[in-house]
Amino acid sequence: MKKIEVLEEAARRVYNSVKHLPGTKESAGDFGRGAGGDISRRIDILAEKAVLDYLREIKFSCIVLGEECGRIEISDNPDGIVIMDAVDGSTNAVRGIPFSCCSLAFASGDRLSSVTDAVIIDLYNGDLYSASKGSGAFLNGNRITVHKETPLYFVVGLDLSGISPDSLQKLSPIISASNHIRHFGAVALELAIFSRGLVDLFVDLREKLRITDVAAGYLMVLEAGGLIVDRNSRPLDSDIGYEKKISFIAAANKKILDETIEKLGLRE
Amino acid sequence: MKKIEVLEEAARRVYNSVKHLPGTKESAGDFGRGAGGDISRRIDILAEKAVLDYLREIKFSCIVLGEECGRIEISDNPDGIVIMDAVDGSTNAVRGIPFSCCSLAFASGDRLSSVTDAVIIDLYNGDLYSASKGSGAFLNGNRITVHKETPLYFVVGLDLSGISPDSLQKLSPIISASNHIRHFGAVALELAIFSRGLVDLFVDLREKLRITDVAAGYLMVLEAGGLIVDRNSRPLDSDIGYEKKISFIAAANKKILDETIEKLGLRE
Repeated sequence: MKKIEVLEEAARRVYNSVKHLPGTKESAGDFGRGAGGDISRRIDILAEKAVLDYLREIKFSCIVLGEECGRIEISDNPDGIVIMDAVDGSTNAVRGIPFSCCSLAFASGDRLSSVTDAVIIDLYNGDLYSASKGSGAFLNGNRITVHKETPLYFVVGLDLSGISPDSLQKLSPIISASNHIRHFGAVALELAIFSRGLVDLFVDLREKLRITDVAAGYLMVLEAGGLIVDRNSRPLDSDIGYEKKISFIAAANKKILDETIEKLGLRE
Repeated sequence: MKKIEVLEEAARRVYNSVKHLPGTKESAGDFGRGAGGDISRRIDILAEKAVLDYLREIKFSCIVLGEECGRIEISDNPDGIVIMDAVDGSTNAVRGIPFSCCSLAFASGDRLSSVTDAVIIDLYNGDLYSASKGSGAFLNGNRITVHKETPLYFVVGLDLSGISPDSLQKLSPIISASNHIRHFGAVALELAIFSRGLVDLFVDLREKLRITDVAAGYLMVLEAGGLIVDRNSRPLDSDIGYEKKISFIAAANKKILDETIEKLGLRE
């Protein structure tokens, strides 16, 4: 069984386990702070359990790094790491806002750049996004790419939640110049819809994201033909670990990326 | 036939006319600038036509004020004005982002405060929101209210698209203090989901919205038990006309509203 198929099946099991929960009181039960530092909600715990149960069932050779559960060894001598945010957009899910997903990536090494497989499933409608290194990105089995042409409306995804006044001021040039700014509240799914061409630029420079938020979306963007760089405008990379805080700019093409770096004064 | 029933049927006709269009090239055909000043897209024109055809068919006693079509007299001696944004969130619809709606309000006079009936239909899933003055707000026939309790996660809706650096700086206190900021890109539908308690605070102080964007959402918020004020923290009101530019703060309760006004320094 290919690794991408394992991730896909795990994601489908999450969807089937929790799809009835978004917006219910049941989704929100408090399970204390997870490894990533946020409060774990019932929906988070059930979703992680679906993945862990499945990986154990098939004795998948891996370590899991989960947003809530932390580091769990599924097997000795693992082939790699499954990086899991079993529910990205827990706030949306708990409040009933229909935008949340399960994000799973497989890395053969200990760097973001060693991610070889990625799956993101939309927990509202079951849309399944997947990508394997060198093989492209897919939505429900159909090839997807970032938006290649100049779009009719240029849409910018931007996460500003809890940003410092200083950092906000630095983003002001792209905010003032953009007529269509969006933030849906689940970065992995936002990178997935970016990868299918619905959004042209996505910026998160808050230094708040964790590897679990970003790992699957990172490969999805690259395999869909997009670009993704760090706050120093270098190709995004990172150790795989909880302590790393990640910022990025994802752009549909080089022109958009260059203009954004210019506007933000990030050129070294 | 009650006015609310007329608006509901008109909204359903819009949904049935355009629900196949979001995300297609067909949706985006350019029909020049509409009365509100934006480019009219094929989806906008078809949606307006569905409303206008229906109102003429039943000889509804009204004038229509439409985002694209401008002022149209459906009958002599009209009973009031139908304020129409037949597709709110056209950018989302054209790009395929599943968040757009049709927004219809009926006003018996020439002020926002004379709006007596409001309907908002979600063009992605057909969810129908409706409100009549003094009778409450409903989603698919079930009573809805704003979120009354202190929420587990406090969610702030915020439109920053094209905001000036100065205005952005003024909003900095609520941006920095909010861990869950959202912007979905269709103000009427955002006020509808606010009215059913998914969002706690919604702020748009850009002075860019038109009466067509706001009329239905305004009544929805009030009938769902929420508060909505202008940039001077007075109850929101306005003439009904294209030239008016509207800013507002909608809050689920007085405490949230007072804290927001305080943070933004809007107390007179």
